[in-house]
Amino acid sequence: MIENVKLGKGVKIWRPDLVNLYDCVIGDECNIGAFVEIGKGVVVGKRVRIGAHAFIPTGVTIEDDCFVGPRVTFTNDKYPPGPREDWGYIIMRKGSSLGAACVVLPGVVIGECSLVGAGSIITRDIPPYSIAVGIPARVVSGVGVKKEDSNDYAS
Amino acid sequence: MIENVKLGKGVKIWRPDLVNLYDCVIGDECNIGAFVEIGKGVVVGKRVRIGAHAFIPTGVTIEDDCFVGPRVTFTNDKYPPGPREDWGYIIMRKGSSLGAACVVLPGVVIGECSLVGAGSIITRDIPPYSIAVGIPARVVSGVGVKKEDSNDYAS
Amino acid sequence: MIENVKLGKGVKIWRPDLVNLYDCVIGDECNIGAFVEIGKGVVVGKRVRIGAHAFIPTGVTIEDDCFVGPRVTFTNDKYPPGPREDWGYIIMRKGSSLGAACVVLPGVVIGECSLVGAGSIITRDIPPYSIAVGIPARVVSGVGVKKEDSNDYAS
Repeated sequence: MIENVKLGKGVKIWRPDLVNLYDCVIGDECNIGAFVEIGKGVVVGKRVRIGAHAFIPTGVTIEDDCFVGPRVTFTNDKYPPGPREDWGYIIMRKGSSLGAACVVLPGVVIGECSLVGAGSIITRDIPPYSIAVGIPARVVSGVGVKKEDSNDYAS
Repeated sequence: MIENVKLGKGVKIWRPDLVNLYDCVIGDECNIGAFVEIGKGVVVGKRVRIGAHAFIPTGVTIEDDCFVGPRVTFTNDKYPPGPREDWGYIIMRKGSSLGAACVVLPGVVIGECSLVGAGSIITRDIPPYSIAVGIPARVVSGVGVKKEDSNDYAS
Repeated sequence: MIENVKLGKGVKIWRPDLVNLYDCVIGDECNIGAFVEIGKGVVVGKRVRIGAHAFIPTGVTIEDDCFVGPRVTFTNDKYPPGPREDWGYIIMRKGSSLGAACVVLPGVVIGECSLVGAGSIITRDIPPYSIAVGIPARVVSGVGVKKEDSNDYAS
């Protein structure tokens, strides 16, 4: 179902019958896989690719040219089930990428052009232009990487 | 599809065309997201909220007032593919909550009013009135927490 | 949707209206759950069981008698979004099993008759006839297990 969605030009939704998009904004030339849910108030920029099974609830903003891997899960409620006024926001800055099956906790900013590896759990902000990976996700390459942040997961 | 389901009063199923519920019991005033599967023999209590993409197979019991986050995965088969007589049961006690994308292994009891953080893998019982988090999930707050159980993930 | 799929004899697709299968080959007597996506060029052998919500994109080959647990995520793009010529392949050898919610990184071979525990992230090849578990998945039993490979997760 695509209900009350402001769709940009050239948006490609692979399986309109198998998505749940409502009360949100999708920018020009986005690409959206099957089994994706995008909830109320979400704003997605231009040329964003959203993989199959992604879950993008209220509170998330995705800027232009991002990549949201398949099965990525964004959250908003820190101590579920909590009141809406306590929910946190998530921002994916321009050109950032989340690998498959990442889970993003509320209140996090994914920095510009950063990349987070598949299966990571993102509990803190990811610096711009860095690569992070693991549970919890730590920077392993790029700006601000510290020796002690490297972990076995990335090896 | 909703097939052979005993539905309580006031159950809200957001996308009846995008769920797969069969041969199960859903209590009064439950709330069920899109892309949810609930399998044969599952019993869900009253006022339970089940997030999008949750997977709840045979062997799971969910008591009243629980919260099942989006993308939560329950399992039943310890050494897949094993014979049905070896499958384990999972019980969510009253008022307990599982954060987004948790994975629960067979044979586990999620204690009353406990809360497990997003992305955790639950391999053992969670004590009542505690908060647990991590892979595997460990108690970080509440009844029975030990110093050595605290882990980096929760910091 | 089932579009341009070469289906073997006796394939059981539980919810044909809630899967997304295209341009792929599915062998005889396979069993496919709801909310499954199988993409272009994927070849699935005979008697494979694919759990609900599994995501199987281009680049994956699954041999006979495998078990793909619910919510298993295969990937193909190592540094997303990357060019298709850099994508990696994944092979599940005969009789291997992936527990629920595993994530498999590109370039990995899951060895014959091996078993990987639920929630694992598989970053390297899994030897045949072994049991592996964890993040990243390490061998805990069977051929080639080393003492130092054992980890808390499996205890």
